[in-house]
Amino acid sequence: MTKKVKNIAVLTSGGDAPGMNAAIRAVVRACSYYDVKCFGIYKGYEGLINNEVEVLNARSVRNVINKGGTFLKSARSKEFRTVEGRKKAYDNLVKNSIDALVVIGGDGSFTGALKLSEEYNFPVVGIPGTIDNDINGTDYTIGYDTALNTVVEAIDKIRDTASSHNRLFLIEVMGRDAGDIALNAGIGAGAEEILIPEEDMGVERLIESLRKSKKTGKTSSIIVVAEGDKSGKNIFELGEYVEENLNDYEVRVSVLGHIQRGGPPSCYDRVLASKLGVGAVEALLDGKSEVMIGIVHKVVTIVPLKIALDKRPHKHDGLIKVADITSV
Amino acid sequence: MTKKVKNIAVLTSGGDAPGMNAAIRAVVRACSYYDVKCFGIYKGYEGLINNEVEVLNARSVRNVINKGGTFLKSARSKEFRTVEGRKKAYDNLVKNSIDALVVIGGDGSFTGALKLSEEYNFPVVGIPGTIDNDINGTDYTIGYDTALNTVVEAIDKIRDTASSHNRLFLIEVMGRDAGDIALNAGIGAGAEEILIPEEDMGVERLIESLRKSKKTGKTSSIIVVAEGDKSGKNIFELGEYVEENLNDYEVRVSVLGHIQRGGPPSCYDRVLASKLGVGAVEALLDGKSEVMIGIVHKVVTIVPLKIALDKRPHKHDGLIKVADITSV
Amino acid sequence: MTKKVKNIAVLTSGGDAPGMNAAIRAVVRACSYYDVKCFGIYKGYEGLINNEVEVLNARSVRNVINKGGTFLKSARSKEFRTVEGRKKAYDNLVKNSIDALVVIGGDGSFTGALKLSEEYNFPVVGIPGTIDNDINGTDYTIGYDTALNTVVEAIDKIRDTASSHNRLFLIEVMGRDAGDIALNAGIGAGAEEILIPEEDMGVERLIESLRKSKKTGKTSSIIVVAEGDKSGKNIFELGEYVEENLNDYEVRVSVLGHIQRGGPPSCYDRVLASKLGVGAVEALLDGKSEVMIGIVHKVVTIVPLKIALDKRPHKHDGLIKVADITSV
Amino acid sequence: MTKKVKNIAVLTSGGDAPGMNAAIRAVVRACSYYDVKCFGIYKGYEGLINNEVEVLNARSVRNVINKGGTFLKSARSKEFRTVEGRKKAYDNLVKNSIDALVVIGGDGSFTGALKLSEEYNFPVVGIPGTIDNDINGTDYTIGYDTALNTVVEAIDKIRDTASSHNRLFLIEVMGRDAGDIALNAGIGAGAEEILIPEEDMGVERLIESLRKSKKTGKTSSIIVVAEGDKSGKNIFELGEYVEENLNDYEVRVSVLGHIQRGGPPSCYDRVLASKLGVGAVEALLDGKSEVMIGIVHKVVTIVPLKIALDKRPHKHDGLIKVADITSV
Repeated sequence: MTKKVKNIAVLTSGGDAPGMNAAIRAVVRACSYYDVKCFGIYKGYEGLINNEVEVLNARSVRNVINKGGTFLKSARSKEFRTVEGRKKAYDNLVKNSIDALVVIGGDGSFTGALKLSEEYNFPVVGIPGTIDNDINGTDYTIGYDTALNTVVEAIDKIRDTASSHNRLFLIEVMGRDAGDIALNAGIGAGAEEILIPEEDMGVERLIESLRKSKKTGKTSSIIVVAEGDKSGKNIFELGEYVEENLNDYEVRVSVLGHIQRGGPPSCYDRVLASKLGVGAVEALLDGKSEVMIGIVHKVVTIVPLKIALDKRPHKHDGLIKVADITSV
Repeated sequence: MTKKVKNIAVLTSGGDAPGMNAAIRAVVRACSYYDVKCFGIYKGYEGLINNEVEVLNARSVRNVINKGGTFLKSARSKEFRTVEGRKKAYDNLVKNSIDALVVIGGDGSFTGALKLSEEYNFPVVGIPGTIDNDINGTDYTIGYDTALNTVVEAIDKIRDTASSHNRLFLIEVMGRDAGDIALNAGIGAGAEEILIPEEDMGVERLIESLRKSKKTGKTSSIIVVAEGDKSGKNIFELGEYVEENLNDYEVRVSVLGHIQRGGPPSCYDRVLASKLGVGAVEALLDGKSEVMIGIVHKVVTIVPLKIALDKRPHKHDGLIKVADITSV
Repeated sequence: MTKKVKNIAVLTSGGDAPGMNAAIRAVVRACSYYDVKCFGIYKGYEGLINNEVEVLNARSVRNVINKGGTFLKSARSKEFRTVEGRKKAYDNLVKNSIDALVVIGGDGSFTGALKLSEEYNFPVVGIPGTIDNDINGTDYTIGYDTALNTVVEAIDKIRDTASSHNRLFLIEVMGRDAGDIALNAGIGAGAEEILIPEEDMGVERLIESLRKSKKTGKTSSIIVVAEGDKSGKNIFELGEYVEENLNDYEVRVSVLGHIQRGGPPSCYDRVLASKLGVGAVEALLDGKSEVMIGIVHKVVTIVPLKIALDKRPHKHDGLIKVADITSV
Repeated sequence: MTKKVKNIAVLTSGGDAPGMNAAIRAVVRACSYYDVKCFGIYKGYEGLINNEVEVLNARSVRNVINKGGTFLKSARSKEFRTVEGRKKAYDNLVKNSIDALVVIGGDGSFTGALKLSEEYNFPVVGIPGTIDNDINGTDYTIGYDTALNTVVEAIDKIRDTASSHNRLFLIEVMGRDAGDIALNAGIGAGAEEILIPEEDMGVERLIESLRKSKKTGKTSSIIVVAEGDKSGKNIFELGEYVEENLNDYEVRVSVLGHIQRGGPPSCYDRVLASKLGVGAVEALLDGKSEVMIGIVHKVVTIVPLKIALDKRPHKHDGLIKVADITSV
C-alpha cells in the first residue's frame, strides 16, 4: 500500500517556458487546498543537490501567474546525471521530509525524474513545460501557445518593413527536432514558405516556388525556417544563396532567438498550467508515480513517463497542405 | 448529382471576431488553389440583398491575416429574416452566377444560411466565427482565443493598480449565455472569484468567500463577472452591495466592453481560421451543403448546421474546480 | 548649514502610475551609488503613520523596472491631513533615523510633503508620478506616456469592430481636469472628435460635425471624451442623445477605466523615472528641500514644490488644430 | 513672389519607420483641409522616376494611422543620385502638375530633396522619419519612440529567460552612428552595461565591471550593444570573449534586427507625425522650401535642410551617468 503523501516538492528544469510560474502556483495552491505541505526547489535538480529548498504557501505564489520564466529558476544539471548526484538529491529529499516530487520541464527533465524514481522508489510526477511542444502523450506543452504568439507578433512587425521595401525575409524560429512552431507560426504569420525538419523541401524547390509567387504579383515574402531544417545550410548561407539565385529581391535574415522563451503567458498557457498543476498534486495524492499529467482533447490525462518520453510521431494534421493553399 | 461548384461567395455576419479576415483569406486562397472564382459580399446578408458583391483574388487578401475585424464588414439584417429579403438575396446570387456560399458567423448567421438553403436548395457552408465559443459541434470558434488573451491582458493591467491599492475589482466580460470567457480568463488572470451564467453562486456566498480570503492574507481581489451572471444585480449594483457588506475593501467596477472584439488575432485563431476556410471550400467542392466546418481535437470536421445550432451542453471540464483550487 | 543627509526614505502616494517602480528603483540605486541608506515606506503616508518601513538595497529593486503599479503600494491617507497624523509620521521618521523623504505622486501628495516640511523643517523632494500629466513645472509626469499608449491600443481594438459594423463609438478616457490624455490619444487613435474639459464644444456642434463627416464618406467614427468634459451629460446620456439625433449610426459607449493605470511602463516612462529618481537623491544630498524634480526639454530641473502645485496653464501647443485637420 | 502651391506630392524614402503612415495621412488631410490636391508617390524617388503617382484624398488614408511601415512603400534609389535620374523625376513632377514635394525620411532622403530643389528650384520640405533619431535640429524623429518600446519589450522577454537561468545576454540593437536607441532602451530595460558608438568602453573594463556586479549578487545580466559600438569585435566574437573571461556565466547573444523597424506606432509617434505632416503642408503653403519640419520642446519648428543635414552633436543629457547609477 502506498504511504499517504504529506509533503510535496516542485521544481522547474531544462529550458524555461512561459506558464511555468502558473504551473508552480497551481501546484502550491493545490497543496494548500488538500492540506499538503509544499516545498519549492530552486534551480532544478542542481538546487536539489545543493539543498536550495524553501517552504511555499498560497501567498508565496501571489502575482506570479502572469510572469514569464520561472521564479524557482531552472538549470541543466550534469551532476544529477550521475549516480552520486542523484544520491545527494535523494538525501536532501529525505532530509526535508519530502515524500513526492513534481517536475516541470521537458524530456531531459522527465528522464531524470524517472531515474530518481527507479533508483529510490520515490514518487514523481511530470508536467510538460517547454515551448517546443515535442512531448508525446499530450496535445500541448506549457509555453508553446505563448511562443507561437510571440513569433507571430515579431513576424507581423517584420512584415511591415518587408512590404514597405519589397524585400524577402528569412526568419529563423526555434524547433530543433519538431517543426510545430515553424509550421503554425508560419501559417499564422502568412509566410510564403515554411521549412521544417520533418520535410526536406530542397533549396531548388524553394527558389522555384519563390520565382513563381513573384510572377503572381507578390512583392514581398516571408520565409519561416525552423532551426533544424534540412536544407544543409545555416540561415545566413541560405539567405545568400537565395539572393544570388533570385534576381529581384533584396534578402534579409532575422534570427528571433530567445525572445521566443519569454513574455507573459497567453491565457491558454495559464489555464493549461493551472489544470496540469492541480492534476499533478491530485495524481500524487492518488498514489500515482512515474507519470506525466497531460492534456488530450481538453481533458487532463495521466500518461506513464515512459510513454511521454517516446518519440512523438510527427503528425501535422493536414497543416502542410493548409500552408500550401493559404500561401498561394 | 450535385452540379460542380464554380463560383463561391463568402460573407461575414453578426458580431465581428478577430480571425474573420484570416478565414476570408483562406476561403479566397483555397478558391484560387482549386481554380474556383471567388466573390466577397460586403456587410453580410444586408450587402447580399443590396448586391454589394466584388470578385476577390489571391492578392485581394494580402496583409489581412493579422488584422482584427472583417474587411468585408458585417451587419445584422432584419430584411434577410423575411421571405422577401431572402428572395432578393437569392436573386443576387443567381445574377452573379454564384453557386455556393460560405457564411462566417455565429448561430444567427447559420440560421439564415439554413433558411436560404432550404428555400432555394442553395449550397451553404458555415464557419464558426464568434468570440463567445457558444457553437455546438466545434471545440473552438474563431476569435475566442484572442478574446481570452485580450481579457487577460486587460486584467493584468487592472491587477497592477488593484494590488497597489488593496482594492477589490469587479470586472465584467462578455458572454451573455456562456461563461467560457469568464471562466477561462478568470483562471488565467488569477481571479479570486468568477461569476458565470451556468452557476448561480449567490451574492451571499460571494461575500462570505471574500471575507474568508481576506483573512488568509489577500490584500486585493479580482472578481470576473460574465455579462449574463445570475446574481440578479447588474455589475454596478453588485459593486455597491459588495462594498457595503465588506468593510475593508474599496470596490471598483470595470466593464471591459468592445475591446474584447478587436485586436490582431492570436496565432491559434489565425491557424484555426486558415484550416476552416480551406475546409469550407473543400466541403463545397465535395458537394456538401448545410454543414458547418468545425474543429474537434485538432481535426477539421464537418457538422450538420442543424446540430451546430443545437444548444451546446455546458461542459466546463473540471474548470470550476480548478478555479476554486487555484484561487485559494 | 544643512546637515548631511545619510538616510533617505521613499514612498508612493495617491493614484498609482506605470513607472513608479522604476522611480523607486532609481532612488534606491542612487542611494546605493552615493552610499546613503535607503528606506522604503509602504502604503504612502498611511504606512508612514503606521511605521511600515523597510530597508531597501540595490538588490531589493531587481526586476521591478518593467512592472506596472508600485511595489511599495500606495494609499490616500485622511489621517495625514491632520496635525496629529503628521506628528505620528514625523515621529516614525525620527525613530528610523530617516533624515530626508522622497515622495512620488501627484499634487495631493506634494501638498502633504510640503506640510511635513513646513511643520518639522524636514527635507522633502517630490517626483511627479501620475498618468494625468497635470503637474506644473515639468513637461511630463511619470505614467502619462504609458497611459497614452494603453488608450491608443484599446481604441485600435475598438476601431476594428467599429469599422466592421459602421458604428459610432463614444470612448471615455481619464482626465478629470486636463484633456491631455483625451487630446493626444484622440489624435493618436485617429478619433473623429475629441471632447475635453478645457473646451466646451457643445453637443449641437458635435452632432453637426458628425453629420458632415458622414456626408464625406465616413462610415464609422470614434469620439474620445475626457471624464471631465463640459457637455453636461455623462457619456451614456451623451451616447443616447447622439443616437437619437443622428439617424444612420448605431452608437456604442465604452469606458476604458482602470486599465489606463496599469501595464508595463513605456521606455519613455522608465527612462524619465530613472532620471527623476536619481535627480531626487542628488537634490537631497545637495541640501535641497521643498522641491520637485521635473523634466523640461529633456533636462532634469528643480522646481519649488509651491510652483509645482500652481494650476498648470492649459497649453495644447496647437494640438486642437492638428486634431481638427487630421480628422477631416 | 512665390507662386501659390496648388498640388503637393508626398513620398517616403530610405529605411521605413513606424509613424510614416501617420505622417502621410496628416499631409493628405492637411491638403484636403487647405483645399490643395495631394499626390502620393510610390517607392520613394525610384517611383517618382518611374512615375508611380496617384491622387490621394482624405478617405485614401483611412485606417492607416495605426499601421507600421509605409503604404506608399519606400526604396533607396541609385538612379536619383545621378543628374539624369533627377531630370526624369523632375519631368514627372511637371507632367503631373505637382508644384511642391514633401519627403519623409532620413538624411539620405533630405540630401536628395535638396539636390532637386537646387537644380530645379522646386519647393521641397522634409519630415524626419527614421528610428535612429540621428537628425539635427529636431528633438525626435518619427519612429524612434516606437523602436525604443519595441526594444524594451523584447528585452523584457529575454530577461525572463535570463533570470530563470542565471545567464548573461548580449543584445544588439540598431544605431550604427548614434547610441540613442541603445542608451535609452538600455536604461529602460534595466541593462547592466550599455555599449554605444559614442563611447569606447573597452572590453577589459566591461569584463571587470561584470565581475564586480557578479560579486554584488547579480545572477543574470543584460548587456545592450549598439550595432556600431567601438569594441572592435562583432557581437558574436564579443560573446565568446566574455564567456571565456568570465567563469560563472553562460553567455547568449541576441540580435534584435528588423523587428525594431515595424509594429504599430506609439501614441507619441502618431501625434508627432500628425503635427509634422500638418506643419509640412503649412510651410509649403507659406512659401517655404529647403526646410525640415521638426519638433523642439514640443513646438513645431522650421529648420533649413542644410542644418538638418549637419552632424548632430552627441548629447546624452547626463544619461550615461543615469545608466551607471541605476545599474548599480
